[in-house]
Amino acid sequence: MNSAFFSPMDMDQKEKQKEQSSSPIYVHNPHLDALKDDILYHFSLGTGSHNLPAMFGDVKFVCVGGSPWRMKSFTEFIAAELAMEDPKSEYPNICAGTDRYAMYKVGPVLSVSHGMGIPSIAIMLHELIKLLHHARCTDVTIIRIGTSGGIGLEPGTVVVTKQSVDATFQPKFEQVILGKTVVRSTDLDQSLAQELLQCSKGLNQFETVIGNTMCTLDFYEGQARLDGAFCSYTETDKQEYLLKAKEAEVCNIEMESSVFAAMCKLSGLRAAVVCVTLLDRLKGDQLSSSHEVLNSYQLRPQILVGSYIKQQLKAKAENR
Amino acid sequence: MNSAFFSPMDMDQKEKQKEQSSSPIYVHNPHLDALKDDILYHFSLGTGSHNLPAMFGDVKFVCVGGSPWRMKSFTEFIAAELAMEDPKSEYPNICAGTDRYAMYKVGPVLSVSHGMGIPSIAIMLHELIKLLHHARCTDVTIIRIGTSGGIGLEPGTVVVTKQSVDATFQPKFEQVILGKTVVRSTDLDQSLAQELLQCSKGLNQFETVIGNTMCTLDFYEGQARLDGAFCSYTETDKQEYLLKAKEAEVCNIEMESSVFAAMCKLSGLRAAVVCVTLLDRLKGDQLSSSHEVLNSYQLRPQILVGSYIKQQLKAKAENR
Repeated sequence: MNSAFFSPMDMDQKEKQKEQSSSPIYVHNPHLDALKDDILYHFSLGTGSHNLPAMFGDVKFVCVGGSPWRMKSFTEFIAAELAMEDPKSEYPNICAGTDRYAMYKVGPVLSVSHGMGIPSIAIMLHELIKLLHHARCTDVTIIRIGTSGGIGLEPGTVVVTKQSVDATFQPKFEQVILGKTVVRSTDLDQSLAQELLQCSKGLNQFETVIGNTMCTLDFYEGQARLDGAFCSYTETDKQEYLLKAKEAEVCNIEMESSVFAAMCKLSGLRAAVVCVTLLDRLKGDQLSSSHEVLNSYQLRPQILVGSYIKQQLKAKAENR
Repeated sequence: MNSAFFSPMDMDQKEKQKEQSSSPIYVHNPHLDALKDDILYHFSLGTGSHNLPAMFGDVKFVCVGGSPWRMKSFTEFIAAELAMEDPKSEYPNICAGTDRYAMYKVGPVLSVSHGMGIPSIAIMLHELIKLLHHARCTDVTIIRIGTSGGIGLEPGTVVVTKQSVDATFQPKFEQVILGKTVVRSTDLDQSLAQELLQCSKGLNQFETVIGNTMCTLDFYEGQARLDGAFCSYTETDKQEYLLKAKEAEVCNIEMESSVFAAMCKLSGLRAAVVCVTLLDRLKGDQLSSSHEVLNSYQLRPQILVGSYIKQQLKAKAENR
């Protein structure tokens, strides 16, 4: 597979027409047009200082995850999958001017870290959506690859999110604007979720399920853990809460999916969340598995999403 | 100044008695005693794998900030201030086994990064409070040194927080536990805030004020910025909101102070928040100052807090 194949530079007329009828990235902000330059501060990038269409115009897949190390390792993995390895194996961090986020790119695949929690991923997504908009990208699929706590699942199970729900099991995200709460939908692309599930069945390397994902604002008290600095509830209270979550079809718990779903939906990005479960929260709270085991689990979303991207690019190449 | 001076190893009897009557770090969790080992997962540390009292028992000051680079540079700065430089100038990252947080230590001063936003700092604080508890630390002062947007202040002004307020200007933090909202106080140590203000007056290097700090869950829509991917309000709406904040004595806006204040109060840590303002939000939203200017602003909380710690340690040494 030739990396130039995915470059907008060699598109023929037919492809150009296809491109024009395809889905852009929406920003919903009339004020942006008035900005002379747009500084994407937390990426250390900007429209005045960087040629964003040249740097990012060919992006078709964006993978995001909490840890910068994991997003670098995903870049190396996807480069090998797509046979697009740099012979020197060098993948420079595009956001090297800041330590807030790390960003890597191989062909049409962008890999970005987002830190932990809703506020951290929201800052990244605001700037990523503007970046894709300024770069005039179209038909972009975005997938969060992460880790989570499972409910009643064997550790290492991969969960493709059907719906992201809050701590009361409602499919909504509350955004505070000018001090008032606005409720946003957390719908994800159901066809993408099904395609990922099918892809995993084809791979047949690990258990993958589809289910709801609970997104919380806290890792300890917010997820009913008994091992934080503070805990005012009993083991029985914890079990009752997690079993209620299970009844609401919650398969796993993490800390970013709700705002990710809400913002991607608003901007027209086809979005999915693929998280591995590191432990079964019905059986414990501490991450006591060995580093080797935890690392092997963390590779699973990368393997699934890498395989899916490869499949999609192959199908696209065959349809040309 | 001798680094061994601050070590618990050379305390005389009188000092031991003083230590016994001093303030411990409180965890409020009866379940912790039942844990064989306590794994501080996001620090890659634990009671089974590390001798926490030997590593951290002498800690008297903890400084926390969003950026790992800034917390490393603070460590180098405070080492020079206290004349405790490592001749090889090596400050190893104590959390080198993970990329979630970075941690450095020089004598009695611990420096820890916390990422961006309430959930990210909350995970760090749960594990930090447990670490200080397991290490049997006493009389610990903790200061967040950060960046913020100012309201009606000259950029570069340092704000010592009087009270952390939410997006409706109320001095409270809402913690969700088992799906229910619990309201916590965001009181900070007023005497510590006054001591920091006095220290800055003595330094006389930059403007420092005391005032309320608004803590939001989002950097763009949550802080009434006009330059995010989404914006549904006008410049007039923005100005009205920020002026209402100013009426409520809000001097600056950031994203971590409320949960920091709430958790430190619960655990008996003497806590303060010292943030520099990078811009005046009444005049703009984009961080368009040069990197040199922004970097010089970001040094100011470090200079103030470094000077305060030096003063305190000197006074303590003289009282012995």
